[in-house]
Amino acid sequence: MIFLDNASTTRCLQSVANATRDAMVDEYYFNPSAKYSEGIHMAKKINECKQRLLKILGADSSYSVVFTGSATEANNLVLSSNLSKHKENLISGGEHASVYETAKAYKNQGYNIKEVKLNSFGQIDEQEFKKLMTPNTMMISFILVSNETGAISNLKDIIAHARKINPKVLVHIDAVQAFLKIRLNIKDLDADFVTVSSHKVHGPKGVGALIYKKNQKLNAQILGGGQEDGKRSGTENLPGIIGFITASEEMHANFNENYNSVYNFKTELINKLTTLLNNHSIKFVINSAGENYSPYILSISFIGYKGEVLLRALETEGVLVSTGSACSSRHAGNRTLQSMGKSNEEILGNIRLSFAPDTAKLDPQMVAEKIVKGILKVKK
Amino acid sequence: MIFLDNASTTRCLQSVANATRDAMVDEYYFNPSAKYSEGIHMAKKINECKQRLLKILGADSSYSVVFTGSATEANNLVLSSNLSKHKENLISGGEHASVYETAKAYKNQGYNIKEVKLNSFGQIDEQEFKKLMTPNTMMISFILVSNETGAISNLKDIIAHARKINPKVLVHIDAVQAFLKIRLNIKDLDADFVTVSSHKVHGPKGVGALIYKKNQKLNAQILGGGQEDGKRSGTENLPGIIGFITASEEMHANFNENYNSVYNFKTELINKLTTLLNNHSIKFVINSAGENYSPYILSISFIGYKGEVLLRALETEGVLVSTGSACSSRHAGNRTLQSMGKSNEEILGNIRLSFAPDTAKLDPQMVAEKIVKGILKVKK
Repeated sequence: MIFLDNASTTRCLQSVANATRDAMVDEYYFNPSAKYSEGIHMAKKINECKQRLLKILGADSSYSVVFTGSATEANNLVLSSNLSKHKENLISGGEHASVYETAKAYKNQGYNIKEVKLNSFGQIDEQEFKKLMTPNTMMISFILVSNETGAISNLKDIIAHARKINPKVLVHIDAVQAFLKIRLNIKDLDADFVTVSSHKVHGPKGVGALIYKKNQKLNAQILGGGQEDGKRSGTENLPGIIGFITASEEMHANFNENYNSVYNFKTELINKLTTLLNNHSIKFVINSAGENYSPYILSISFIGYKGEVLLRALETEGVLVSTGSACSSRHAGNRTLQSMGKSNEEILGNIRLSFAPDTAKLDPQMVAEKIVKGILKVKK
Repeated sequence: MIFLDNASTTRCLQSVANATRDAMVDEYYFNPSAKYSEGIHMAKKINECKQRLLKILGADSSYSVVFTGSATEANNLVLSSNLSKHKENLISGGEHASVYETAKAYKNQGYNIKEVKLNSFGQIDEQEFKKLMTPNTMMISFILVSNETGAISNLKDIIAHARKINPKVLVHIDAVQAFLKIRLNIKDLDADFVTVSSHKVHGPKGVGALIYKKNQKLNAQILGGGQEDGKRSGTENLPGIIGFITASEEMHANFNENYNSVYNFKTELINKLTTLLNNHSIKFVINSAGENYSPYILSISFIGYKGEVLLRALETEGVLVSTGSACSSRHAGNRTLQSMGKSNEEILGNIRLSFAPDTAKLDPQMVAEKIVKGILKVKK
């Protein structure tokens, strides 16, 4: 099996899974709300994990963290808490469903939420953004790396412009596909809120995090015992959090090595695929080649094919890919590609290959051959 | 260490932690939304886990399950979806914070939510309930086993009465402390919604479940990719769910043996404590003795003492207990004991001992001696 769907989820590292298991049974199963020393020790451990996460993200002491049950929950938390009811808000057409569907629900309640289109490269269109950004825009929520194409938006300039137009604007970045995949420094980007996920970086499922500027408000969406500084109730999943931080530090320590090998793998795979596809007269468009894309994601449109048919054909060769984002597979079409202005044929024939450090050890020629062999099975 | 705070959280079983770890790394790490066969296999596995949970709960095919990140989230989900805005709702004064604080937030928004007092035994007062239940009561949300005293409310009669007064009433049971600790049959109780938790039954943290009647509405609180049949978005934590079901089936298989040994341990502990405390002229009131209480919880009030001082004194003897619920430790006082009409002295001097099957293997005389030795250190 060649698992090329790492943008959907990643395999938990063995060392991470062991650390999580040990925490469940041994040292870290106590309730962090308990008043005896073991409970206090748990609460301290959660805070330590927050500091370790902030360090990885380059965030200073003006930031803190809420651990959630998923990045989706983190996105819902920041939007439900901070979307402006009476003024304006901006998202992009390339947001993940957890931002897009949440914003849509508020829009249906009468909130003013405008959508910035993507440019033809898949980035948030800066010209369109500048048109829509006004002194009345109170919140912007943008994805940094597209989960569909890997396109990296120029959020540094976008955020700087937003703050110039309205110094009080709240800035949220969905960094799920950026975290530990491309260079990311929260302070440098000047964000108020940043969402990251554990299971996209080889950590356990069921853990996400919202990083927030301490001086910004965050109203709990889940109420109860007042855990997470009153911002998210429910007994903290400390073993899961420990697994998340263990995985993040492992990925962080190997960032350069991972980045370079995945980058080289993607580049080589594109080269080998291009040759083979041309040899077999298979028409295709690469949507993610070059410097402005995450090396971890490769989006390709096969002209005259259906993505779902290709997915099954590749599966017969043991190659697992996705058509659009697995997370939003229940929503028809591919919103991101539509927002980029892609043709119907390009959208219909789209598949996404997404990588992990392990994938980079594979021979690109062998992977390309398997992919093309799969496609040839359904070529008319 | 003698861990007597199992109502707060339990230690994960080694077999459960191993199953969870294996699922993370090996067979069950794929995204259940993925369209290749491994993804479809994940989705099937989640459904299988739901069927196994329903079987344990005695629920027929008219019920289904939403897996959540905690029981707190499950309680928030059912209340946010079903509290009636324009008619009446009932909760009790003995609800867990995740129901009580959520209901309070809606009350502050103008919802009509009335609170049924507890009787002196700690049960939901049936007379008061009958006074407050009207044909306009559209939802009732009651705790089955008190997390503070272990009192078991007579929900079967309460629910039957509610349905007689308003056949359309929605019924939610918070069964977190009841699940696998006392006999529980959803169909028999005739509930529409039931909340249970993984980490209270020796499963992993970060997993809860809301069981619901399929013909009742449930509006997602967390939006996005549309997972969990559109009722709770976010990539499913299948390894955690597998751990939860593994733990639940283990506890279910040993239900009678566990119940009897914990029951005997609690009875013997009360006997030994009573003798020793009387010998040392320590005044106390047992709040949880007899048939109408879960054997897993023992609430005692020490007259003239402060619970928090006792907690620390017992800790020096290696005995870990709680003062009120750890989950709501940030909220002043003890709402449950107040609702029962307990005196200030009884509330102030209250501690909660809570047990697990492992605890029942300890010698009650030894445990009682350690507890009394701890108390004597702070006796004036």
